[in-house]
Formats: sequence, structure tokens, C-alpha cells
Amino acid sequence: MAEANPKSEYVVGVDLGGTKILAGVFTVDGLKCAGKAKLSTKPGRGPEAVMDRIARCVRDALDECDLDLKRCKGVGIGAPGAVDFDGGRVIFAPNLPGWKDVPLKKELEKRLEVPVFVENDCNIAVLGVHEKEFGGKPRNLVGLFIGTGIGGGLILNGQLFSGAHHTAGEIGHMVLAVDGPKCGCGNKGCLEALASRTAIFNRIQSAVKEGQKTLLTDLLDDKLEDLKSGDLRKAIRRGDKFVERVIEDAAEYIGVAVGNLVNVLNPELVVLGGGVMDALEDEMLGIIAEVAHDYAMPGANKDLEIVASKLGDDAGITGAAVLARKQLK
Amino acid sequence: MAEANPKSEYVVGVDLGGTKILAGVFTVDGLKCAGKAKLSTKPGRGPEAVMDRIARCVRDALDECDLDLKRCKGVGIGAPGAVDFDGGRVIFAPNLPGWKDVPLKKELEKRLEVPVFVENDCNIAVLGVHEKEFGGKPRNLVGLFIGTGIGGGLILNGQLFSGAHHTAGEIGHMVLAVDGPKCGCGNKGCLEALASRTAIFNRIQSAVKEGQKTLLTDLLDDKLEDLKSGDLRKAIRRGDKFVERVIEDAAEYIGVAVGNLVNVLNPELVVLGGGVMDALEDEMLGIIAEVAHDYAMPGANKDLEIVASKLGDDAGITGAAVLARKQLK
Repeated sequence: MAEANPKSEYVVGVDLGGTKILAGVFTVDGLKCAGKAKLSTKPGRGPEAVMDRIARCVRDALDECDLDLKRCKGVGIGAPGAVDFDGGRVIFAPNLPGWKDVPLKKELEKRLEVPVFVENDCNIAVLGVHEKEFGGKPRNLVGLFIGTGIGGGLILNGQLFSGAHHTAGEIGHMVLAVDGPKCGCGNKGCLEALASRTAIFNRIQSAVKEGQKTLLTDLLDDKLEDLKSGDLRKAIRRGDKFVERVIEDAAEYIGVAVGNLVNVLNPELVVLGGGVMDALEDEMLGIIAEVAHDYAMPGANKDLEIVASKLGDDAGITGAAVLARKQLK
Repeated sequence: MAEANPKSEYVVGVDLGGTKILAGVFTVDGLKCAGKAKLSTKPGRGPEAVMDRIARCVRDALDECDLDLKRCKGVGIGAPGAVDFDGGRVIFAPNLPGWKDVPLKKELEKRLEVPVFVENDCNIAVLGVHEKEFGGKPRNLVGLFIGTGIGGGLILNGQLFSGAHHTAGEIGHMVLAVDGPKCGCGNKGCLEALASRTAIFNRIQSAVKEGQKTLLTDLLDDKLEDLKSGDLRKAIRRGDKFVERVIEDAAEYIGVAVGNLVNVLNPELVVLGGGVMDALEDEMLGIIAEVAHDYAMPGANKDLEIVASKLGDDAGITGAAVLARKQLK
């Protein structure tokens, strides 16, 4: 991490998740991370309390690098749901109880007295990946984040593309198997119902109930509900063929989804991120890329790159800082 | 059609298809069609002969409205395949034998001595629909054309979006049913393999072979290979429940595809066109819209309109004229 410089200008990027709030302080020039802070979200306490916690997390991150709010030019924040960017409101956030039409921008500006900008978390993450990992160069980039759910974001013609009402990039709810398993959204066969951590866990849990043997039961002392992506990697590396097959199937579905997106959008770059990818890149990326190239039409395959993001958990805070910086310029 | 006006400026739009070439003369101001011409493509004679025929069709259309090439400011042309817009080349056109890396712009400029601009036919058609039917207003529009195959085009942020290598919009090869029927492209379960005229015909033909009764066999004197979209409409209107079911299934698949696109791109408008839609709008549009709204996430559904294009066969020539006009401005 860079030292706080008395002459530098800073922005803070916030990643608001269902379980934790991350905040990172970044230099306006060079987008270097000077310090970070983390708080649990405590979503059950309701929107007001969560917004207090976000403000606290921003102050904590600044304090971590011996700065205060006067040195902060702006705050960007990625929220897990549908966001009205212009109004700075969170319309709806499925993992944050009570968050319906919450004026997040206005409320945080009241608490912090600096300009605040709000976007959808996946849009923000793809902005971070595009700017920090690829120097803002790719004109057309599709980002897919595979975690508890599956989200996405689009850079088209060099800009974040968010559609008519800022909801573009709902890649997790692209249907790939019309008669497939039920998704949390109510549809059947969405990518999220086939390849998210939730989908993977569901498949493993029902197989175990039906008598399937797996190293995971030993690894977790039979507490399968504690399963994390890292446990899947451990099981595969210790030779668990069942878990390997489940992960390969998930990777194949992701590959088909990437192929669809490549055919529809013809990007030059597809970037995969999220907790599942971070833990299982070696196991999944090769399969995803092979299947995607196979499904992509010849013209769309030209010069197409499919890679994993190296930003990990930092994609969100980095992108939120990029958003704040863009808005202030 | 408008009268040729001695003071007007004109552009010609060409729709190059696998079976026919259409050319339309349009006023630069107001985009009014002053005259049209049509020639068979005769693709078997090879690219040189086809390009001669395109040039002839352009001259015929101008002659039809008592104009000559001197009054034509430019020619736009939509080609059925992958197009290198900047180089004016047709990289590959599956329905035109021998068309690999053909310098269509250069060759037509040699023959016509006016500026020529080349784009993919579906991109062109969506440009025509956007400009002529909707006054260029929708910022984000997805066009789907259901015919022998299924193609699409995207207007994003008010502009034709064609991706990194001008192949964006390959909506026909979006996979909806990973274990579905084989598609001409080699993949399985593409929208085109589920809902194009070819897919509909294949399903009907195999069912008839297996003993399915349908009015179509009477309508066509047992020559099912002559089946046209209009025959399907006739059979349904005379009470053929089997054909009705086949068309409903196709409409449902198209609805799922539209839902996917709405979730990924969040457009305000989805326009459906092509021969199958033109013939079966009453039978299909309601189902498509209902299923699409059902599959779309709540945020993406906001203010979303799903309509059928009224341009029919003229979408291609109109869009090609729009392209020429845009390039000349």
C-alpha cells in the first residue's frame, strides 16, 4: 500500500455487501490503494443503521492511512441491487432487508459531507477491473462474477453500459436450460441456478443425501452447510472425482453463458471474477474458455481473450473509487 | 412512394440476400422511398456476377424513379454475414457460395462511381427500424429478425453497436437449451435451432413422418418442402391445433431469448421482425411478450416495450439508406 502523501488527493471506494462492508482509500492520480477498512454489514438492523456503518467504515479507512474526510474528494459505492444512478437511490437489494428505494447518496452525503456516487456492485466491479487491471483500454469487456450469486457488468464502446434503467448486466439470470433447476428469481435454468456457489452447494448436498461419498463430509465434519469455495478446491486436489465433476459441469455452463455473451456482444475481452473463480481458477478457467470458444461464432472468436481477474475482493472498492474519480473530473 | 424531386438528394439502400437483391431509392431529407427494384441473387454464379447484379439493381431502382447515378449521393448495403465495416469487406457469408473476404465496397464503387458503405444485414435492418419507425429516439433497442434463420441487431446508447469486430447481435446463436436440437452452426439448443422457420419446418416434417395429421399436407398437396410462413398462419386459422402448438412453442423460446436479452442489456424497446413474424404476428407476439416480461427481472421490465416492426421486407433497404446517409453527413 502507498503511503499517504500530503499533496495527494484521495477518493474512497465502498463495496456494500450482504455480509460485509469494505472501504478503500485510493489516490486520484494513479489509483493506488492507501488503506482499507472492513465492517460487518448487520443488514438486520435496517437501512439507517447500515448507512451509519458505511459512514463509519469510510472514516475508519481514512483513519487507517492517517487521513480525514477533508482530504477525501468523493466516495463511490457499489450496492448489491438495482440502483437509480442519477437519483443515487437503491431501488431494491435482495440481500439487504428493508432496502426499497433508499436515498443512499443523499443519506451518506449528510453523514460524510463529501459527494457520494452510487452504482450497482457488479457494474462497479467491472469498472474497477477495466481501469486498474487493463488500464481502461479494452473497448468492449464483459465481466462475470461467480459467487453466492452470479452477476455481471458490461463495458461497451469504452464506457460502462447500464441500459435504460441501470439494470444491464444481469447475466446470472440468462436462461441456458429452459427445463433446468429452479432459480431464486422464480425462473428455471438461469446461469445462477446452474453454476453459482449456491447451485454447486445445492447439488452436492442433495447428492450426499442420496448417499454420494465425498471428501467434503470429512473436511467439514459433516457440516456441509459450512461449505466454502476453498473446501471445494481442497477436495478436488485430494482426488475427489465427484466434486471435480460438479465443478466441471458448473464451468461448462459458465462457458456456454460466455459463448452466448460473445455472440451477442462481440467483446474483445471477457473477465471472470468472484469468490468461486478466485478459489477455483485452475480448475475452471480452462474449461470455461474452451467451451466459450467452441460456442462462439468464428467472427466473434477473433482475438477474443477470456481471463480471470486478479483483483479478487478489491474489484469492488477499486471500481467504486474509479466511479468517484470519473464523476469528480 | 414519393415523386422524384429535381431538388432532392438521394441515397440507395441495398439488401443483399441469399435469394434476392432489393434496392430502394430514398430521399436524404425525410428518408422517403422514391422507388424500388428487385433481382434474384443467383449466388451460384459467384461473387463477381453477384456484384454485377447488385450494381444493376441499384441502376434499375434509380431508373424506376427517373433518376441516374449522378443524383445518388451514396449507396448503403446490408450483407448476410460477417462484415469488416471499415474495410468494406464481406469476411464470410454462409448463404453466398465463394464469398470469403470479398471487397464489396471497392468493387461496387468501381462499378457505380459513388461512395458505398457495407454493414451486416441485421445491423442494417435494426438501423432502419430505429430511424424510420421510431424516429431514432430509443436509446437502447434490441432487434430480432425471425426468418429462415434468426438474426439480431443492437442500438445501444443511441448508436448501432457492432462490437469489437462487427459481429455483435448474433442472437440466433444464443443457447437456450443446452441439450436441445442441433443447430446449423454445430452447437446444440441455439434459439435458431428452436424457433427459426427452418426449426419449425423440421419439427413439422418429422412429426408428419411419424404420422401426425395436419391441414398443411392438404394445403400443400403433400409437398411439405414448399411450406411458407403464410401456410402456417392459414393452417392455424383453420383450426390446426398441432401447428398452433408448434408455433406457440417457438414463440415461447423467442420469449425466453428476449427475456435473456432484456436482463443482459436492459433496453427500453425490443422490436421483432422477419418473415415468420410478419406472417404470424397475431399468433406469436402476445406469447413472446408475456414470456419475456415473465423472465425479465423487475428493474429491467420497467417501461419495457416489446413490439413487431411494420417495415417488413423494407427494413433492410431502409436501414441501408440510413447507413449511407449517416456516413455522408
